[in-house]
Amino acid sequence: MVKGIPVSFGVGIARAVCLSAKETQAVHVDSQPANVEQELKKLHDSIERSTAELNRLHEQVSQEIGAAEAAILDAHLAFLQDPAFAGEMKTQIQEQQLYAVQAVQQVMEHFAAIFESLDDSYMRERAADVRDVGKRMIKNINNPEGDAQEAYTEPFVLVAEDVTPSDTISLPRQLVRAIVAAKGGATSHAAILARSLGIPAVMGAGPELLTQTANGDLVIVDGTSGSIHINPDEETLARYQKQAERERAEMEQLEKLRDLPAQTTDGRRIELVANIGRPEETEAVLAKGAEGVGLFRSEFLFMDREQLPTEEEQFAAYRDAISGMAGKPVIIRTLDVGGDKHLPYLDMPKEENPFLGWRAIRISLDRIDLFKEQLRAILRASAFGKALIMFPMISHVEQIRRAKGLVEEVKQELRQEGIAFDEAIPLGIMIEIPAACLIADALAAEVDFFSIGTNDLVQYTLAVDRMNERLSDLYSYFHPAVLRLIQQVIDASHRNGIWTGMCGEMAADPLAAPLLLGMGLDEFSCNANSLPRVKEQIRRMSYESAQEVAKNALALSTPDEVKTYLASL
Amino acid sequence: MVKGIPVSFGVGIARAVCLSAKETQAVHVDSQPANVEQELKKLHDSIERSTAELNRLHEQVSQEIGAAEAAILDAHLAFLQDPAFAGEMKTQIQEQQLYAVQAVQQVMEHFAAIFESLDDSYMRERAADVRDVGKRMIKNINNPEGDAQEAYTEPFVLVAEDVTPSDTISLPRQLVRAIVAAKGGATSHAAILARSLGIPAVMGAGPELLTQTANGDLVIVDGTSGSIHINPDEETLARYQKQAERERAEMEQLEKLRDLPAQTTDGRRIELVANIGRPEETEAVLAKGAEGVGLFRSEFLFMDREQLPTEEEQFAAYRDAISGMAGKPVIIRTLDVGGDKHLPYLDMPKEENPFLGWRAIRISLDRIDLFKEQLRAILRASAFGKALIMFPMISHVEQIRRAKGLVEEVKQELRQEGIAFDEAIPLGIMIEIPAACLIADALAAEVDFFSIGTNDLVQYTLAVDRMNERLSDLYSYFHPAVLRLIQQVIDASHRNGIWTGMCGEMAADPLAAPLLLGMGLDEFSCNANSLPRVKEQIRRMSYESAQEVAKNALALSTPDEVKTYLASL
Repeated sequence: MVKGIPVSFGVGIARAVCLSAKETQAVHVDSQPANVEQELKKLHDSIERSTAELNRLHEQVSQEIGAAEAAILDAHLAFLQDPAFAGEMKTQIQEQQLYAVQAVQQVMEHFAAIFESLDDSYMRERAADVRDVGKRMIKNINNPEGDAQEAYTEPFVLVAEDVTPSDTISLPRQLVRAIVAAKGGATSHAAILARSLGIPAVMGAGPELLTQTANGDLVIVDGTSGSIHINPDEETLARYQKQAERERAEMEQLEKLRDLPAQTTDGRRIELVANIGRPEETEAVLAKGAEGVGLFRSEFLFMDREQLPTEEEQFAAYRDAISGMAGKPVIIRTLDVGGDKHLPYLDMPKEENPFLGWRAIRISLDRIDLFKEQLRAILRASAFGKALIMFPMISHVEQIRRAKGLVEEVKQELRQEGIAFDEAIPLGIMIEIPAACLIADALAAEVDFFSIGTNDLVQYTLAVDRMNERLSDLYSYFHPAVLRLIQQVIDASHRNGIWTGMCGEMAADPLAAPLLLGMGLDEFSCNANSLPRVKEQIRRMSYESAQEVAKNALALSTPDEVKTYLASL
Repeated sequence: MVKGIPVSFGVGIARAVCLSAKETQAVHVDSQPANVEQELKKLHDSIERSTAELNRLHEQVSQEIGAAEAAILDAHLAFLQDPAFAGEMKTQIQEQQLYAVQAVQQVMEHFAAIFESLDDSYMRERAADVRDVGKRMIKNINNPEGDAQEAYTEPFVLVAEDVTPSDTISLPRQLVRAIVAAKGGATSHAAILARSLGIPAVMGAGPELLTQTANGDLVIVDGTSGSIHINPDEETLARYQKQAERERAEMEQLEKLRDLPAQTTDGRRIELVANIGRPEETEAVLAKGAEGVGLFRSEFLFMDREQLPTEEEQFAAYRDAISGMAGKPVIIRTLDVGGDKHLPYLDMPKEENPFLGWRAIRISLDRIDLFKEQLRAILRASAFGKALIMFPMISHVEQIRRAKGLVEEVKQELRQEGIAFDEAIPLGIMIEIPAACLIADALAAEVDFFSIGTNDLVQYTLAVDRMNERLSDLYSYFHPAVLRLIQQVIDASHRNGIWTGMCGEMAADPLAAPLLLGMGLDEFSCNANSLPRVKEQIRRMSYESAQEVAKNALALSTPDEVKTYLASL
């Protein structure tokens, strides 16, 4: 038995397919010098095939998971089309008489090394992208007839040293029963994707995972406890098979909740909405029964490009999201970059502690030109349905006052130009900095709603970088300090006659739902796939009993006590 | 008039000496090839002279400022003695027939560039050290008879692009009236030194400072408002001269308070203690009237060396500090590295956000061997006076429970070995993470005292890196959120029958003193030079009126409102 970090719940049981073993066989060449023409053709075919695969995958991911997840593949396609990338491979084949696989391998490693040396988390992710693309090309040279998915013919558990987002995306969802990895943690992109896809996953299991597991071993993955059983005894297997069966039955139950309201047994109605990253996602969101969009991240318009999007581009995207939701509310968050999100065309300084740096509203209020353009695009789009504006990273009352002043300026301009917009568009803020929780009364007097961002709030409240694996045992949204801040925020909002939602990871955790419900949270916003499970929790309880749960949890003093208490309910 | 960041209060009026102008004259050589023997001798003499200067300065700084400040010079001496440094200069002279000044300049820039490329704040500080040493050597070649201090013959205001700590240290304190710099901020080492030395200073004044100021210009520096007046009119000059006179008279008054208790007019007694970095500082601390040491940073034992200090080295240092304070309490903080303090011999990972990373107690609880050795050294030293142990960066109740368990283990070992120690040694924690404030009741039940570290607490509460100049207008300990957390901590400690002190920068700010007093703070710990002014504030007020101040300040909603209110008292 090996233990890791549980990152996506559920039980998966199947034979192991070890990814590392497959990779080492990738570059296998003859000792003869290569036939240049033949290898150039192989390269060309591989690029064509890889492009087609990625386009197919992109289509599939947009429809089945979400456009934000699909965007990862855009970056891969961009590499395939980059002449510096494929061109360099051709040169290597022509001048060095390399085999195509060798040329791909060399160029891929060369580019990956450059990205890795750039000491910037955004750029390092690019190294992983380059390797992803390179491996796909090598596979298409070695096995030109096969498709990534055809390698798997029966149910399996993926075992790997590390899992990239595109590994996760391209797994055949009918066959993959679980993912386990030696590296990674709960907040990696791959883990977030596994949760979106509902694949049980355990990461950060350590190198012993790889030494103890061989292809074909029977593996049980418990995505709730983090246990990985390799070639288990009969009794363990029987026990887990029963549990897997229970989970399957439960999922079928959940499907039926889709069109029922998120309402407690004693009649408290909760707003259950979804987080989206692109306007195209509205369709999937409505299909899952969301009552609106609680967080539309506007970053996709700004990432992976060479210059700022125009007002028109922004307007079109916001309008598509708003009209796509057909009158249901859409909360558009203004630009939230900085931290681990870098824009090459903004003059963003290299910072010692980017999470404590020039981010989000801090950038917007320093770059008023850019900010007003975004506000103008959102306001114009507000004429096409029900829009709300939300400002991220507010810590000072002055910031929201300045932001409101700018909204007023833009409104005045639009009025003068005779352009339609929603005069009564509600303004809200993210509550994701401890200071904002502590001055929530003063902030509530300035805005129409709050949305708690637990990912950052936990990070600052505990002084723990959520991406730092060394500290993963300290990071928890069940820490009593976090719970008390959340309670303060909700209470302050209600005292001031406004509502509070939540759009961080915590809102998607069924374990947290009774607690948040009892604390008085008015709106839960999470990824569309998590909605049914959260709704089930809300419909199962009375508001009165949830209030009792919240009271009890708030009296505890450690994250483990809180978690154990909630799990015991 | 130019505006900058006020970093050390007081008014300074004198003619400008522009540091940048002096530097450009440093490397001036003939076009003839150098006489190798002669240049080698110049280099040798310069090293000897520079070493002697640094030793003198070290002696002076240890006595007049503090050993922690003097330690900066140890790093400079180490470079002078490093064969890779001086040896490379010799090689350059011999092989390239360079003049000594050229060789120094080249090698200095070569090493500085290496350090700067290392992308680590600790290493980048080393680049500044190398340049400091190089410039001192060049000065000693160009002007072998002169001394740095002899360059100044009359009172002056130092005007520079950037000021290094050793620039600040080596200024003739009888003549320097103020420091102004285009770069830097309130939390740079140079700013901290300026405050320790009581030199008015304004930094971050921007490049216009340098274009608008010439050598010999009359300059008024207002270290309270951040204003810099260049060649002021008669009226402005007269007004500031009056203010400077008032400040001088005030300082004389302050000196007289030294032996009086820190007591309010209605009899509330406050513990006024000092922060130190080395045992040698206890003498100066007692001379300033401190009633104990509120924070003994143990880091100096661990910094600037190749391996861990032994238990014996640690024991000797703790014993010296404890016996040096002659029965007065000494709070020893266990190892607080990580963040911006890097130890080359610990396996410290490169982190994206070191301030949210593997720091302080997190390291100690992961490296129990190292932690127990430190606890053993402190416990052994506790037999020599009045010691207290303080753990930094506590955010979880579990952490303090584990730390207490380890103290108990070490005590048991010492008992078995028959080694004397204080069985009743009090244990306390730093309160510097928002989470700790919010669970202060649970923490208070576990320890004997709290000490609030405002520098980190403000940083996390506001999500603002205090070293990030781009955000300096957001960083403030007068933010109402910070004040509310402080009040919660003090209240929780009193409810649980323990006391709360403060050892961050805020405790040394006379403007904050009435507020903190009124909030019920029991102990103020600051650098020895700030003690008299804080004491004066405490003795001037009644506890009752201070409580009123605190109540009013806590009701405000922006840092500016709080600051304006306190300044109006």
